[in-house]
Amino acid sequence: MKSLIEKYPFEVETFQVDYTGGLSFGFLANKMLITAGNHANERGFGKERLSADGKTWVLSRLAIEMDAYPNEGEKYYVETWVEGVNRLFTSRNFRVLDKNDNIIGHARSTWALIDMETRQPADLTTLYDGELAAYSCDEPCPIKGVSRARVTTTEPAGEFVPLYCDIDYNGHLNSVKYIEHILNELPLDIFRTHTVHRVEVSYSAECFYRERLAVYIDKKGDDHEYDVEIRKEAGEVACRAKIIFK
Amino acid sequence: MKSLIEKYPFEVETFQVDYTGGLSFGFLANKMLITAGNHANERGFGKERLSADGKTWVLSRLAIEMDAYPNEGEKYYVETWVEGVNRLFTSRNFRVLDKNDNIIGHARSTWALIDMETRQPADLTTLYDGELAAYSCDEPCPIKGVSRARVTTTEPAGEFVPLYCDIDYNGHLNSVKYIEHILNELPLDIFRTHTVHRVEVSYSAECFYRERLAVYIDKKGDDHEYDVEIRKEAGEVACRAKIIFK
Repeated sequence: MKSLIEKYPFEVETFQVDYTGGLSFGFLANKMLITAGNHANERGFGKERLSADGKTWVLSRLAIEMDAYPNEGEKYYVETWVEGVNRLFTSRNFRVLDKNDNIIGHARSTWALIDMETRQPADLTTLYDGELAAYSCDEPCPIKGVSRARVTTTEPAGEFVPLYCDIDYNGHLNSVKYIEHILNELPLDIFRTHTVHRVEVSYSAECFYRERLAVYIDKKGDDHEYDVEIRKEAGEVACRAKIIFK
Repeated sequence: MKSLIEKYPFEVETFQVDYTGGLSFGFLANKMLITAGNHANERGFGKERLSADGKTWVLSRLAIEMDAYPNEGEKYYVETWVEGVNRLFTSRNFRVLDKNDNIIGHARSTWALIDMETRQPADLTTLYDGELAAYSCDEPCPIKGVSRARVTTTEPAGEFVPLYCDIDYNGHLNSVKYIEHILNELPLDIFRTHTVHRVEVSYSAECFYRERLAVYIDKKGDDHEYDVEIRKEAGEVACRAKIIFK
């Protein structure tokens, strides 16, 4: 059996920084999902084996909390492990370390496994004779899970349609692109004066190529916190999110 | 003096593939620009030293020609070298190798060096006492440079505005994002039946945050070749491009 926790090295490359010079949030979230995929593949419950069995992982909730970001050219590390497994969901946590191995962030994620044909969830406790459950690990992850964003505004802050570069091999809007499209609709100045401290996303519907989507944003109390919904044309919520700057 | 040609290893990570499962073109172009930056930095004419001197590299033209793409999880390599230097421009070439060191693509790029304040070009032949010119190299690069795309249509295929995730640390639309926004406006089916064989871009104007831009596309002869212009609201051409599928 492989180690419960695995540590993956990365480096902030040119063009992976946003206009403030720090690692852009989309790239960071991407790297976390990459480590999730690698960790799972290396332990026998990854995309490759599952897709041969007609199943696929679906990201349900994601909370990322960062205290600092690595800069261009700097190394950083993402550690990941499975926290627990119940029938419908498994939770996977992450820790981000800077070049000197100081902890600069954490993340929590929740995944379901669905049948690609029926879209029905699979029982995770019995998956491959409990192989996934055997990797559960009580490593601490000192951040809260996803809370419930509440959006009351009826005026969209912006609209978008998923295009070629937004969609993954399933033909769906890529999980990280939801976050990028939300960040795109926040006031640019906030990125100049603050950094993204915490992002929570709760995914509720798959979005498709050229489907018309609108981003609704409620500013909470001060300028540092935003509750967001991406809604489909008929009103269905595609995802809820909370973005907190500091 | 360092080697004239340098080879950089990469791996196609999850989420770097488009919906056909191959390395997405935007990521590939990004990697080339990353190798350009690293190669220049390691030889003393990179962004860091130049920006301390108030200068910055500007990508003027880019032609990429690919015969195959690496798939998810596969290693690949990008080699790069300086072809030549004249007063206003330097040309840098690239070669892409698959995991088995077979050549799968090439690229040509042309760069100017401008003063960040005056936006005037610097004389490259005398830059740092000819240090850049000393790296010129006659390694063959068997693809043509950028030709001239001709667009006559007056109906835009689509419009976009550069948002937070599109802009780089200069506040400008990132060079690779021009390409992604162009690919976004081509018919999705072409990516299902063909692969991007050649992309040419000639950059003529910087584009800014939330500036309204339109993509004009002329289909050439058959379905496999598109001439494209991105134009600003007043009609100014921001870039010309040619996309050839095979």
